[in-house]
Amino acid sequence: MPCEYRLKRRVQFYETDMAGIVHFSWFFRYMEEAEHALWREAGLSIAARGDGFGYPRVAASFDYHAPLQLEDEFDVYLRIVKITRASMAYACAVSRGGERIATGALTIVCVTRGEDGRMVSAPFPADVRSRFDVAAEAGA
Amino acid sequence: MPCEYRLKRRVQFYETDMAGIVHFSWFFRYMEEAEHALWREAGLSIAARGDGFGYPRVAASFDYHAPLQLEDEFDVYLRIVKITRASMAYACAVSRGGERIATGALTIVCVTRGEDGRMVSAPFPADVRSRFDVAAEAGA
Amino acid sequence: MPCEYRLKRRVQFYETDMAGIVHFSWFFRYMEEAEHALWREAGLSIAARGDGFGYPRVAASFDYHAPLQLEDEFDVYLRIVKITRASMAYACAVSRGGERIATGALTIVCVTRGEDGRMVSAPFPADVRSRFDVAAEAGA
Amino acid sequence: MPCEYRLKRRVQFYETDMAGIVHFSWFFRYMEEAEHALWREAGLSIAARGDGFGYPRVAASFDYHAPLQLEDEFDVYLRIVKITRASMAYACAVSRGGERIATGALTIVCVTRGEDGRMVSAPFPADVRSRFDVAAEAGA
Repeated sequence: MPCEYRLKRRVQFYETDMAGIVHFSWFFRYMEEAEHALWREAGLSIAARGDGFGYPRVAASFDYHAPLQLEDEFDVYLRIVKITRASMAYACAVSRGGERIATGALTIVCVTRGEDGRMVSAPFPADVRSRFDVAAEAGA
Repeated sequence: MPCEYRLKRRVQFYETDMAGIVHFSWFFRYMEEAEHALWREAGLSIAARGDGFGYPRVAASFDYHAPLQLEDEFDVYLRIVKITRASMAYACAVSRGGERIATGALTIVCVTRGEDGRMVSAPFPADVRSRFDVAAEAGA
Repeated sequence: MPCEYRLKRRVQFYETDMAGIVHFSWFFRYMEEAEHALWREAGLSIAARGDGFGYPRVAASFDYHAPLQLEDEFDVYLRIVKITRASMAYACAVSRGGERIATGALTIVCVTRGEDGRMVSAPFPADVRSRFDVAAEAGA
Repeated sequence: MPCEYRLKRRVQFYETDMAGIVHFSWFFRYMEEAEHALWREAGLSIAARGDGFGYPRVAASFDYHAPLQLEDEFDVYLRIVKITRASMAYACAVSRGGERIATGALTIVCVTRGEDGRMVSAPFPADVRSRFDVAAEAGA
């Protein structure tokens, strides 16, 4: 079962800022692109498609080691590091050639609509869980 | 009834690109900000709030006369130039001090969900129409 | 010499808005992506690389025919329709499968830094001009 | 001397995603808006203005407690928690009314162009340091 993904990407002009480098907020979008590609690779779509489940982010971070510049080709490597009943944690490494650019982390939770109409925590649907099973790390 | 709005705005860092100026795509977001502020001024929200109506954009354009730069304070002046039964056209002028920066246009239509579930053209709801009435220009 | 480009693209989650479709401002970024890919195809980079030339946008527009949705795969077809001494006009067609999604236009000009430090209109550098020559349409 | 800032902000339509809430990447831009407003309040501009100094981000994070929705009015409270010779750390709290929405952190460093043309770590310029002095927390 896939529990990692390597996204190949090129820096676009609209991702740069007046400092001449990719704006730091873009790395969070790169990480999300890799996440959704990983889910597609697993035969899933992370976007609620009528099944009522959603996957909001509860924590996201990046450490920045070196800047990305226009037209740079780079990799966004994403890996599931932990799955529990209702949450998933990813680690992310952005690199260019062999150079380390940024190191990120992302945690999502599974929610569904409760009886009062509000989103409430819920276990991952069975198909999601089965496709991402990382046995050793699965928690309660 | 309000049919124009002047939004005061400051350029943010993340709106600039590596050319050191505001990226041209941002003007479309500035125009939308002014549009939604105009609707709020009229006591309305342009975002569907359960009434089933939506207002997709069918045409948008800008001519650029001079660049905006970081921390510039500028105005986004938006004016309804035509309302028909199911569409609305705006004209937009972005300026800094007395200087002309960009000139835009935006056309939206009113849609609602048809019996087959697809969005279809619909007359504006009565409250929207009454609040934006620009008598002379109203068409069929 | 290349005077057109077809970019293959997939809708990303962060490009959608609460209406469930791609936000209209994104089409201008898609058009720019195709433009820069066209220049790369021609062996050029549109971003000033120390040669002092810049290519600001002076006009940009889109007509929207149908929405794009999450994970849709779509094409951005860009074509040079006119080159003059110091300006270039593109036509753009966004489509999904055979379906027409949006039709755009973009005009850029060539500028360089004048003696007083301000950007002023300038003829395209010779290499740019020679690589994009569209003989029949070249103007003054 | 100012070492905190409270930014008042309203959610814009283009900041929402198809889940109907503000996309998580936007919080990093809100945090930056507050940061630049804090610097302006201190009589400074964070953007290099010819003095050769830059302030790249080396770490950024958010924990998300509740979503923001269209047209919500919210606060972005930013506070300097530590200044050293060449780095500054902020804490950020996003709230709506009394409700806690998100909690962020941001660390920036001061750089300038070294003799070989590359950006290298440098002490903050004297005016920056003097205006943000948080005596007790200043390190080496």
